[in-house]
Amino acid sequence: MEKIVSLCRRRGFVFPSSEIYGGLGSTYDYGHYGVLAKNNIRSLWFEAMIQQRDDIVALDSAIILNPRVWEASGHVSGFTDPLVDCRTCKLRFRADKLEDGQCGRKPSKRPGEFSECDLTEARQFNLMFETQVGALQEASSSAYLRPETAQGIFINFKNVLQLARRKPPFGIAQVGKAFRNEITPGNFLFRVLEFELMELEYFVPPAEAETWHRYWIEQRYAWYLKYGLRPSQLRVREHSAEERSHYSSATSDIEYLYPIGWSELEGVANRGDYDLTQHTQHSGTKLEYVGEGGERYTPYVIEPAVSIERIFVAMLVDAYDEEIVADRQRTVLRLHPAIAPVKAAILPLIARDEQMVARARSLYDELRRRQVVEYDDGGQIGRRYRRQDEIGTPFAFTIDEQTLDDDTVTVRDRDSLAQERLPIGGVRAWLDDALERPWRTPKGD
Amino acid sequence: MEKIVSLCRRRGFVFPSSEIYGGLGSTYDYGHYGVLAKNNIRSLWFEAMIQQRDDIVALDSAIILNPRVWEASGHVSGFTDPLVDCRTCKLRFRADKLEDGQCGRKPSKRPGEFSECDLTEARQFNLMFETQVGALQEASSSAYLRPETAQGIFINFKNVLQLARRKPPFGIAQVGKAFRNEITPGNFLFRVLEFELMELEYFVPPAEAETWHRYWIEQRYAWYLKYGLRPSQLRVREHSAEERSHYSSATSDIEYLYPIGWSELEGVANRGDYDLTQHTQHSGTKLEYVGEGGERYTPYVIEPAVSIERIFVAMLVDAYDEEIVADRQRTVLRLHPAIAPVKAAILPLIARDEQMVARARSLYDELRRRQVVEYDDGGQIGRRYRRQDEIGTPFAFTIDEQTLDDDTVTVRDRDSLAQERLPIGGVRAWLDDALERPWRTPKGD
Repeated sequence: MEKIVSLCRRRGFVFPSSEIYGGLGSTYDYGHYGVLAKNNIRSLWFEAMIQQRDDIVALDSAIILNPRVWEASGHVSGFTDPLVDCRTCKLRFRADKLEDGQCGRKPSKRPGEFSECDLTEARQFNLMFETQVGALQEASSSAYLRPETAQGIFINFKNVLQLARRKPPFGIAQVGKAFRNEITPGNFLFRVLEFELMELEYFVPPAEAETWHRYWIEQRYAWYLKYGLRPSQLRVREHSAEERSHYSSATSDIEYLYPIGWSELEGVANRGDYDLTQHTQHSGTKLEYVGEGGERYTPYVIEPAVSIERIFVAMLVDAYDEEIVADRQRTVLRLHPAIAPVKAAILPLIARDEQMVARARSLYDELRRRQVVEYDDGGQIGRRYRRQDEIGTPFAFTIDEQTLDDDTVTVRDRDSLAQERLPIGGVRAWLDDALERPWRTPKGD
Repeated sequence: MEKIVSLCRRRGFVFPSSEIYGGLGSTYDYGHYGVLAKNNIRSLWFEAMIQQRDDIVALDSAIILNPRVWEASGHVSGFTDPLVDCRTCKLRFRADKLEDGQCGRKPSKRPGEFSECDLTEARQFNLMFETQVGALQEASSSAYLRPETAQGIFINFKNVLQLARRKPPFGIAQVGKAFRNEITPGNFLFRVLEFELMELEYFVPPAEAETWHRYWIEQRYAWYLKYGLRPSQLRVREHSAEERSHYSSATSDIEYLYPIGWSELEGVANRGDYDLTQHTQHSGTKLEYVGEGGERYTPYVIEPAVSIERIFVAMLVDAYDEEIVADRQRTVLRLHPAIAPVKAAILPLIARDEQMVARARSLYDELRRRQVVEYDDGGQIGRRYRRQDEIGTPFAFTIDEQTLDDDTVTVRDRDSLAQERLPIGGVRAWLDDALERPWRTPKGD
């Protein structure tokens, strides 16, 4: 994991946030390549979950909702962790995870050694960030930053049902930031204060809930395989009754074998009719489906939910590779081309050669109209290749002396290191094809 | 404006947020077509500002930053509105805009009539939402939701300068949510609690600041023309000294003639060296450019900043049209095809005809692999056309009896209403071409 964190920092994927002010715990900023990779993950999810389907529509609800939403959902009363404060060092710890805590005054002590500390009794601490909305000066102006995007979907259920002329099974999906006031220090991007959730709420007739639950586990599992995660690093694990959230009647996690061990990548929950029933009771608006024949029921909800951050880390971990090539170590991110932040690099072999530069710039200008590509004329060609390997660029086109003679360029494959020559006029079509080809990780399964 | 709001609601572009709980002032949720249109605006901005340029890189910084960032930026002390409270009705009003206020207990009174109300003295009210970050229990754990994304860029200036091997002029751009605790009730999407900012911070040698300021005003103005806004509805207006924000040494707004009058669409500010200097002083980290020859200076910053919401409203207003066709009124959104949420509709003329449906579904499956298209077999063909007109779909392909004979379909143009026949096998290429063609609004200038 340290290697991943270091690569992310070195190549500008991810920085600790607010670094010049000493940081802010469990918060990160994304640099250029991080933004591009996240954009790809988001687009591919949106395409698979919405654009390619007839039965799912998009939504983008607000982060700050009417606070009664969170009373109805159970989050105000139930979305809590038990915490203890240390009266000596003023830090807070999860009462149920004291073995991971470390006293702030005695950093030399091992985690979990609190024998000399002055800990308070445990109390319940709500994980929602609270703020004040200013239009009213009364106590009721407290509001929360959403800890999940799902509730924004449930409260719009009726709007969508009417306007999109849908009937179950149908889904509403959205992507957006969510916030959790986490106390436990995070493992890199695993437990962060703010994260970008991608959630689908799929509404089904109650009798079909189990079938659709299995369907969505399979769909999402297949999506990860399609974008290059190795099956050996993936598994599906069913939650035990004790683990499940207050709203869930069954949850399965698609887990990935992260460096910290098997951990949740995506959760697929059967939320039953819990949320629609709660909002019906609290709002007085009936959130149910009424069929043409007059039959009515409250649909069950199947929810595949994942954060872009967890996919991002899984993709990086899965893609990271080191190998010895010609006696030198090479670090390479073997990312699926659709995930790779940059699709191709255009490299003039000799940066001082005006003709090579002109040809390279012209190819670059042609390609970047359709793809994110990068022009690089800085340093030895070997260094430039290694830079592109580290950010996972699948192809590099090099313009050299021969290009000036016969209008061909070299294309270098990131994974196999094979090089071949192509006519420069055919590069654009070649790249389009190469990016559409089915892809399999060269790391084996 | 009422017509736009009503269309947005009717066709599922935008809903008032938390509607089943009585709403939340100045907050909206976006339905399917709203999400698609916003995605298009965001992608086109990203493409023009980052992907097509060598000199600008992307960033995605956190919403909750270390609170010292906002002390340094001047927002903690200076980002305020003067407010008065009414002791009778408990509402708050902008002291400088009392003429727009309306007493909550006397809704019959005209705005601005406060003679019988019991108003407090004005006091400064900070527009940043405040919250508590839980890892520490002390007062210093207060944090803010960012009111602009720019500061996240400034504090990462050094990271990017080093890693992206840049020198001025170069830029860092980002898209993300920002939050302002606005008191003045909004005009639809004009003044909302949360909005999605698209900001570029462009770092330049101080002597070149004015030139680059003009350059960015022109670039951004041209971008709006390219995506269909009429020049007659656009103007550039320079801020007077009193209007300018605390950090600005010159600001020009690109204004649009909204139904509420000329109002800011995008601001292009010259922030000078204010921000980098402030952060250098407060953080102790020198945020300056050091050239290869050892020369050093603090770059000036040119900032084009706009919210997706304001572009979205301007595009809708500009595109909205009503006309009488064959004695019936038609409402049509003449959106630029790149902005339109749906690029084409595929319509089987007779929904009960299995052969027509099969041909239509097959065309739909082919097209949606590349574009957002919609299949619609619900209701009379005229109704379906009108539905697509209202959401701004530029093209509709109809599969009819003749299709079954000669493999051609009708393509209907949203704006001219012209219909022509095309071979069904050529539809995909025809649509690709049509979406790439330069486009001019049929509403004249």
